[in-house]
Amino acid sequence: MSLLATKMSSDDLICSRKMARQNGIVQPLLTDLYQITMAYAYWKSGKVNDVAVFDLFFRTNPFQGEFTIFAGLEECLKFLENFHYSDSDIEYLKQTLPENIEPEFFAYLKDLTCKDIKLSAIEEGSVVFPRVPLLRVEGPLIIAQLLETTLLTLVNFASLMATNAARYRMVAGKHVSLLEFGLRRAQGPDGGLSASKYAYIGGFDGTSNVLAGKMFNIPVKGTHAHSFVTSFSTLDDVSSATLSHAETRAPCNLLQLASEWRKKVSSIIDISPEEASDGELAALISYAIAFPSGFMALVDTYDVKRSGLLNFCAVALALNDCGYRALGIRIDSGDLAYLSVLARETFDQIAREFQLPWFSKLTIVASNDINEETILSLNEQGHKIDSFGIGTHLVTCQRQPALGCVYKLVEINSQPRIKLSQDVGKVTIPGHKEAYRLFGADGHALIDLLQRSSEPPPEVGQKVLCRHPFQESKRAYVIPSKVEHLYKMYWSDGHICIKPKPLLEVRERVQSSLRTLRQDIKRNLNPTPYKVAVSDNLYNFIHDLWLQNAPIGELS
Amino acid sequence: MSLLATKMSSDDLICSRKMARQNGIVQPLLTDLYQITMAYAYWKSGKVNDVAVFDLFFRTNPFQGEFTIFAGLEECLKFLENFHYSDSDIEYLKQTLPENIEPEFFAYLKDLTCKDIKLSAIEEGSVVFPRVPLLRVEGPLIIAQLLETTLLTLVNFASLMATNAARYRMVAGKHVSLLEFGLRRAQGPDGGLSASKYAYIGGFDGTSNVLAGKMFNIPVKGTHAHSFVTSFSTLDDVSSATLSHAETRAPCNLLQLASEWRKKVSSIIDISPEEASDGELAALISYAIAFPSGFMALVDTYDVKRSGLLNFCAVALALNDCGYRALGIRIDSGDLAYLSVLARETFDQIAREFQLPWFSKLTIVASNDINEETILSLNEQGHKIDSFGIGTHLVTCQRQPALGCVYKLVEINSQPRIKLSQDVGKVTIPGHKEAYRLFGADGHALIDLLQRSSEPPPEVGQKVLCRHPFQESKRAYVIPSKVEHLYKMYWSDGHICIKPKPLLEVRERVQSSLRTLRQDIKRNLNPTPYKVAVSDNLYNFIHDLWLQNAPIGELS
Repeated sequence: MSLLATKMSSDDLICSRKMARQNGIVQPLLTDLYQITMAYAYWKSGKVNDVAVFDLFFRTNPFQGEFTIFAGLEECLKFLENFHYSDSDIEYLKQTLPENIEPEFFAYLKDLTCKDIKLSAIEEGSVVFPRVPLLRVEGPLIIAQLLETTLLTLVNFASLMATNAARYRMVAGKHVSLLEFGLRRAQGPDGGLSASKYAYIGGFDGTSNVLAGKMFNIPVKGTHAHSFVTSFSTLDDVSSATLSHAETRAPCNLLQLASEWRKKVSSIIDISPEEASDGELAALISYAIAFPSGFMALVDTYDVKRSGLLNFCAVALALNDCGYRALGIRIDSGDLAYLSVLARETFDQIAREFQLPWFSKLTIVASNDINEETILSLNEQGHKIDSFGIGTHLVTCQRQPALGCVYKLVEINSQPRIKLSQDVGKVTIPGHKEAYRLFGADGHALIDLLQRSSEPPPEVGQKVLCRHPFQESKRAYVIPSKVEHLYKMYWSDGHICIKPKPLLEVRERVQSSLRTLRQDIKRNLNPTPYKVAVSDNLYNFIHDLWLQNAPIGELS
Repeated sequence: MSLLATKMSSDDLICSRKMARQNGIVQPLLTDLYQITMAYAYWKSGKVNDVAVFDLFFRTNPFQGEFTIFAGLEECLKFLENFHYSDSDIEYLKQTLPENIEPEFFAYLKDLTCKDIKLSAIEEGSVVFPRVPLLRVEGPLIIAQLLETTLLTLVNFASLMATNAARYRMVAGKHVSLLEFGLRRAQGPDGGLSASKYAYIGGFDGTSNVLAGKMFNIPVKGTHAHSFVTSFSTLDDVSSATLSHAETRAPCNLLQLASEWRKKVSSIIDISPEEASDGELAALISYAIAFPSGFMALVDTYDVKRSGLLNFCAVALALNDCGYRALGIRIDSGDLAYLSVLARETFDQIAREFQLPWFSKLTIVASNDINEETILSLNEQGHKIDSFGIGTHLVTCQRQPALGCVYKLVEINSQPRIKLSQDVGKVTIPGHKEAYRLFGADGHALIDLLQRSSEPPPEVGQKVLCRHPFQESKRAYVIPSKVEHLYKMYWSDGHICIKPKPLLEVRERVQSSLRTLRQDIKRNLNPTPYKVAVSDNLYNFIHDLWLQNAPIGELS
């Protein structure tokens, strides 16, 4: 992996985003059929003018953690903006639904847009918690219902992925570079693209996925694979060994220089040059000739200690003779703690021996089946890795591959709706609500508070009674030093009201939002749950409605 | 879920497939950057005319099973057919790669196609096993290397998903209908589409995903959600209660009929009509008016026993008065074994009481967080479910969300290549090989045998020595009753040589291929591993090459 990043011009960027949008499969038919059958039943029941409020929320944080990063909002807004059934969609629905559907319904669908929908949301990139709605969708019942599946699809994986990436960033620390390498193991082509995008938002520094780089303007990284090394057998496979000196432009014979350096280095680090693979040396020389300023070499094809490191150092020193500085190595197998320490010691030794202090600073990338636990364990053992390349565990969220966001009706024609369940955790919080985050004097977030929208917002310095939504005795007074209203209106009257922030700003939002959380809530092992409460008014409202709707059982 | 299926005309189908292809994100840039940097290094080293052979294979079956279903071949062929760097791709690469890349390389990329590539593969939908290559890619080293990531992305998730679906089909049995309901929890929009497609191939009967239905001509299914039920509060919410009789076209008042039936049924099944929700009854009546021939009702919004079943039976009997037969119910929570038995008993009781034998046959769909283990446990308890709707566990392959296919260089310019590893399981099998499946007299597959391509194929009735690729002492003679050559050439000279089979045929292939496997290999608990062997000739070839390439260690 040469650490090659790039920037596109903003024109290109707009063009490639437009392309991505036009080519998108995010369209009204990307939904469950029952949304459309329900739409017809509503339409048929004269509910065209009913007005509904839906909340989109999750019930449990992923990865046994106590926080989640909200992502996917920009894609939701694009979906609302482009919501439209094409002629071929309508034709398909005509063939799919029963024959006796009234033709006027299809005419109604044909004209549907999201102009009467209002979407309020928490800012993308924020830390969020169970039961606090991420999105609140208000508008005609039929159209709000038709949005359900697609909004869930767009929020669920995006938020899961951003949360996963943010967790990797936390365990790796600020100073380690994190690269997403997961495309080949992702859940389908777009699973890979989404993973690249939301890993970046969650705190990764780049991806190997070139199309993601092009579409989302994310830095792309990468050098070569084992197959590149194994495609060379002997030093005769170096077809052209000449490289022009970086400054003088004089021709240098990199093969000859590297062969000489290999002898010198082998005596210093006490490895016999006969043990090192000539095919590997040929491959590294060829790679260095192609990328003299971006020489990052994979060193574990044969044996890191007895072949890869020696060959790398030989080529790096030869490049130095030609006026170029190598970037570093990648290790893709074996004991990463031990091998990274060994590599760093070797680099230090060479730096001292040949008075090349920059050699100590060469980048060490590690990339073999890494997950959160691997990084924690490497941290404990002590390692000298500068950068992790992370694939499968990151992009498939192996530890928990789905976030369970749901989309629930909470109000219809200004009447609250409650969904009961024998499992208390699944009871919905009814009505049109607002969410506030209350902060303590030290700047940390204390609690998220849900209120009925008709209530006055909590005020700084004023005592607020915060109640557990379902457990009567769990109550606490909070005096906030700062109150943040969590919702902003992002879509109204057929337009995006707040322009989505560029990816880079959402990425920064993730880190600034995480900084407002106490460390014990963020830690990997047994984190403390963050509190989500309801106002006293909302508490009573929920429980009155619950009693009204729950049938009285009979023990038998 | 009304069990509504549909067929598109073949014109529509071609059109929507074409659309899917044109809109696809499956393009040459959907790859890891290192493929492109390697391409440049190869190009720069004069390796433009080198010819390589790569094998695409996996090392371990997923889900602790002993078989895998190979899928994704059609998408791979489309990818080869459309492989082409656009001007904007080239422009992006120029900006992304270092400045000193020679411009002729970009001209070379611009003209690249897959015309010189040969792709051999196992038939899509076949059962396959570790180490037997699924794809063999031969051709110019640079282009064969450039295909790696995309081919892996296309095969990995497709095969994982088809395998997962086939496992669900095996535990559910032949006579249960399986529906994929996972879009909202899938890994991105295309993760959802791929899941729908490959679940169908693996043996599912339909999907809720409308776009998947349109793009792949898969039956789509679905009725309504809890929110539909909770959007109705009282019987006054039934705006129009009139339904025309199916035959006489005379107007029937479905509200009145259902209310009367609810009283009658409540006395029979000993549930008070006061306990049942009027809002639910209103919702079901409204749904039945919209879909009189497709009435399938969700019955667990309030209480299956005391509300949902009673309301459903009332509406189903009212529909019967109007000349329509209801389809059945869906249960989405609670004890599915108990509730399905209760529902079936209730249906039987009504069938007897009102002499409506078809009432006993109403469909019972279950759909709450179902996985392989849930189905096995329901089977043990005894259930009366006709159809499972399966979401999260199916589409994210929660138990193992990635298949680890790899793509390894095995030959270059007719010279074999081996990738060594301290982990024997990761050593590659070098050279250009053929794969044969040997069958016993009872028609079951006995063993898969890899040979060097230069060897004569095994013959029916002739003794073949089959060896474990890495363990010297593990050998067996096999006398096959049938020999199947596993590879066919699917792509050569720039064309698809064998037209991909329609989805439905691939789906049938999965079942017929699974039937050739002994039951103990397919079972859920502790399955017997299927054997994969190499010929004696290939065994010696591997081990000679291994010794040539492995450095002799030193104990210290």
